[in-house]
Amino acid sequence: MLPYKSLIQVDRNSSVSLHIQVCNSFITLISGGTLQPSDMLPSSRVLADLIGVHRNTVKLAYEELISQGWADSVARKGIFVLSKLPIVTKRRLTNAGEQLQKKEPFTWTNKFKDAVPSRNLQSSILTIDDGFPDVRLTPIDELMREYRSISRKSYGKNFLKYGSAKGSAHLRQAIAGYLYNTRGISVSAENILITKGSQMGIYLAAQLLLAPLENIAVGVSNYLLADNTFKHHGANLVRIPVYDHGMDIDYLEKVLRKRKLKAVYVIPHHHCPTTVTMSMERRLKLLKLAREHRFAIIEDDYDFDFHYENKPYLPLASIDHHQNVVYIGSVTKTVAPALRIGFMIGPAPFINAAAALRELIDKQGDTVLEEAFAVMFNNGEMERYFRKSLKIYKSRRDLFCQVLKSEFKNKIEFTLPEGGLAVWASFDKKTDLVKLSAAALKKGLSIDDGTFYRNESFSANGLRLGFASLDEAEILEALGKLKAVLK
Amino acid sequence: MLPYKSLIQVDRNSSVSLHIQVCNSFITLISGGTLQPSDMLPSSRVLADLIGVHRNTVKLAYEELISQGWADSVARKGIFVLSKLPIVTKRRLTNAGEQLQKKEPFTWTNKFKDAVPSRNLQSSILTIDDGFPDVRLTPIDELMREYRSISRKSYGKNFLKYGSAKGSAHLRQAIAGYLYNTRGISVSAENILITKGSQMGIYLAAQLLLAPLENIAVGVSNYLLADNTFKHHGANLVRIPVYDHGMDIDYLEKVLRKRKLKAVYVIPHHHCPTTVTMSMERRLKLLKLAREHRFAIIEDDYDFDFHYENKPYLPLASIDHHQNVVYIGSVTKTVAPALRIGFMIGPAPFINAAAALRELIDKQGDTVLEEAFAVMFNNGEMERYFRKSLKIYKSRRDLFCQVLKSEFKNKIEFTLPEGGLAVWASFDKKTDLVKLSAAALKKGLSIDDGTFYRNESFSANGLRLGFASLDEAEILEALGKLKAVLK
Repeated sequence: MLPYKSLIQVDRNSSVSLHIQVCNSFITLISGGTLQPSDMLPSSRVLADLIGVHRNTVKLAYEELISQGWADSVARKGIFVLSKLPIVTKRRLTNAGEQLQKKEPFTWTNKFKDAVPSRNLQSSILTIDDGFPDVRLTPIDELMREYRSISRKSYGKNFLKYGSAKGSAHLRQAIAGYLYNTRGISVSAENILITKGSQMGIYLAAQLLLAPLENIAVGVSNYLLADNTFKHHGANLVRIPVYDHGMDIDYLEKVLRKRKLKAVYVIPHHHCPTTVTMSMERRLKLLKLAREHRFAIIEDDYDFDFHYENKPYLPLASIDHHQNVVYIGSVTKTVAPALRIGFMIGPAPFINAAAALRELIDKQGDTVLEEAFAVMFNNGEMERYFRKSLKIYKSRRDLFCQVLKSEFKNKIEFTLPEGGLAVWASFDKKTDLVKLSAAALKKGLSIDDGTFYRNESFSANGLRLGFASLDEAEILEALGKLKAVLK
Repeated sequence: MLPYKSLIQVDRNSSVSLHIQVCNSFITLISGGTLQPSDMLPSSRVLADLIGVHRNTVKLAYEELISQGWADSVARKGIFVLSKLPIVTKRRLTNAGEQLQKKEPFTWTNKFKDAVPSRNLQSSILTIDDGFPDVRLTPIDELMREYRSISRKSYGKNFLKYGSAKGSAHLRQAIAGYLYNTRGISVSAENILITKGSQMGIYLAAQLLLAPLENIAVGVSNYLLADNTFKHHGANLVRIPVYDHGMDIDYLEKVLRKRKLKAVYVIPHHHCPTTVTMSMERRLKLLKLAREHRFAIIEDDYDFDFHYENKPYLPLASIDHHQNVVYIGSVTKTVAPALRIGFMIGPAPFINAAAALRELIDKQGDTVLEEAFAVMFNNGEMERYFRKSLKIYKSRRDLFCQVLKSEFKNKIEFTLPEGGLAVWASFDKKTDLVKLSAAALKKGLSIDDGTFYRNESFSANGLRLGFASLDEAEILEALGKLKAVLK
């Protein structure tokens, strides 16, 4: 007989009833090959004694085992493992550690073998991030109030059911109004898809627009996750220089004489990472080229809401009368990263295709959250939030840049950003950013190591320094620590 | 001079200030080609008179226009549209209606041209759905309480920042415990990815496992969105019959003699749509074949939590000692469709690849919501919810099936489902389900028309009738209406 006393152990504190625990132990023994088809199980009395449970518990476990098709009862003989079960060769249970060393049980794409996850920022350590909002300002109480109020109404409960892959109709309507009022984009709900943040917009656009080996133009420096998304779809990335006035559109025009482009990806406000803004002249010329060469412009405008000086240039989407622009934005980047709400704007048939693809990816968004945001847009709460946080971020930017200017001479070069939540800091060539990042962490400051923004054509020794998520005391403390490790 | 009086109209009730409205109107005129480079703008006095605003408003608008790079001021002459702007040919503003009729502004995949969106169920009309939970039972107040409590704590606010593409560490831990307690699946957090519902698990698995033209085995009848996801990835679907004891594994074995399979997609509990359950014998044989032929089993177990009779068969994943199973489940399908939380279980390196892909798709989930669910799993709230709703659904199933049996003789055939939230109803061949659905809607009952479950090899005249989302009075009313249109 098997050493059941050690093989079957029950936990009296578990929420799982004892007979189910015993039954599951037998299933493990049978499915693992320790018990073979036609093997006899011990009598209920014997097993009860061995493992220290009541006999009725074992009887119930055996009934369960039989009802689940693992064993059978033979009159006057006992309980047997079902003879028709396939024979399993006995082997030890694997665990993840073992499993890594042996051959994989099945094969999958090796595209992601060397993928490095993005920085996880969900900690309380003092952090200079890449330029994200201060979640302490997020109007989360107001949002929750709306969420609860909606989900308590009998009509509101409907938003817990399956809805549309395009997102809440109310939020699409509210976003249409918000885009018109803040940036002159004139679209109706049929041109709008609610996404999970900007990234989903980039992914959907890439998958719809790009077949393997087709060309997409991107900046020499660019947002890494956008590059990776286009590469993932097999597209060929054509790098276009980005200078002080944004992407070099004359260069792009020359490229177009030789190669067909399916799309151009631009971040006209606060290009990522270097924060430059594309001039109006270049914007218009880019639109003209798109019209003539029939390519799509993917306009990633993640950061429009934060401008500190004049009213910003209007987005390409607002002056595009030929529908060449797929416009991507997000609430995520302006309110809180973990609240996954964004939007994609485009010609109605393109948005329909995007919604059909999105249905395969994750069906739809969280409609109640979308409805809550719709209320917040409509009752002015979002506008109040933007106004309030803009004021705070402006004073944080000013303090941050003032300290950067006075305390980091010869170490860091930068231009005062007229918008956005980060400064592009060029470090002295002798500064090893990877070492700097490690040294800072020892002093209690988390700061990026610069690898995220490098690519095959861009290797500047720079970092995006996010000032918005730190209050004044934290800015002084963080830059103090940075200075201490930079000397 | 242009007819500015009709071209520029301001709205005094708008939240946008008047000078910005005037400025934006000029941008529209310039970018649309109505005003050309080097054109002179009217003097501020003239324009102020024409459009009925204060002269200073026009002056401010012109300043804004200049600062945004659209115009320039020439001393003692006036304001001119910037001469270096590209020339735009004047045309009318397009709208979506026009746009559909002309050539698309750019091209994209036509894969989704004929896509039909899923049924939108977010309405209050009496509905027989496909088998979804009753959102009136969703513990939304408890969930919101946890959400708020987390987001108010200073540590909890960290969950509003960017986190991990794999999902909340606490929820992954809680799901590990829940899977072990409810279904004997023994995995650790590194084997778990938190997804947006089951559908995202299917999408991620498809994209990682399937290259174009590779084979995946699926049921002759199958969940349409799974089929569509595999087809979208260019895979070849090998149809395997599904009878009363689930997928015919002997048939699968014969297929394997001739063709290499990358994966098999199964719904062993309550196969969708026909609700049959795969026998234990077949489960073990499928695992054996997977081991020998090194294919992945995608086990979609969306519905495990609802069983009314014996304890259910354990999932393949719980008796898979060779890690051939990618196990997909969701909280969405058991708590509320619009709360997008699911999970995917697999070998740790596979889960790492899935997380890297997921980062390109939408970065991550809503961490605060994930944390709130983790608390609900850990404090027993989820278990209480499952126990309570199971009891309610069992009595609804019994009533629903009793009425179906007594009132729909010769019209509908069905088997009492031992779990899940729907009955598979085979209708009399003479019944035209499309007409039935339309007639029912006229009587105030929304019911599917059967097309969703048909595919190239499955054309049964059947419907999934969801009983769970209707209370007793609604069941009687809904089936009463159905009977009235079925005679």
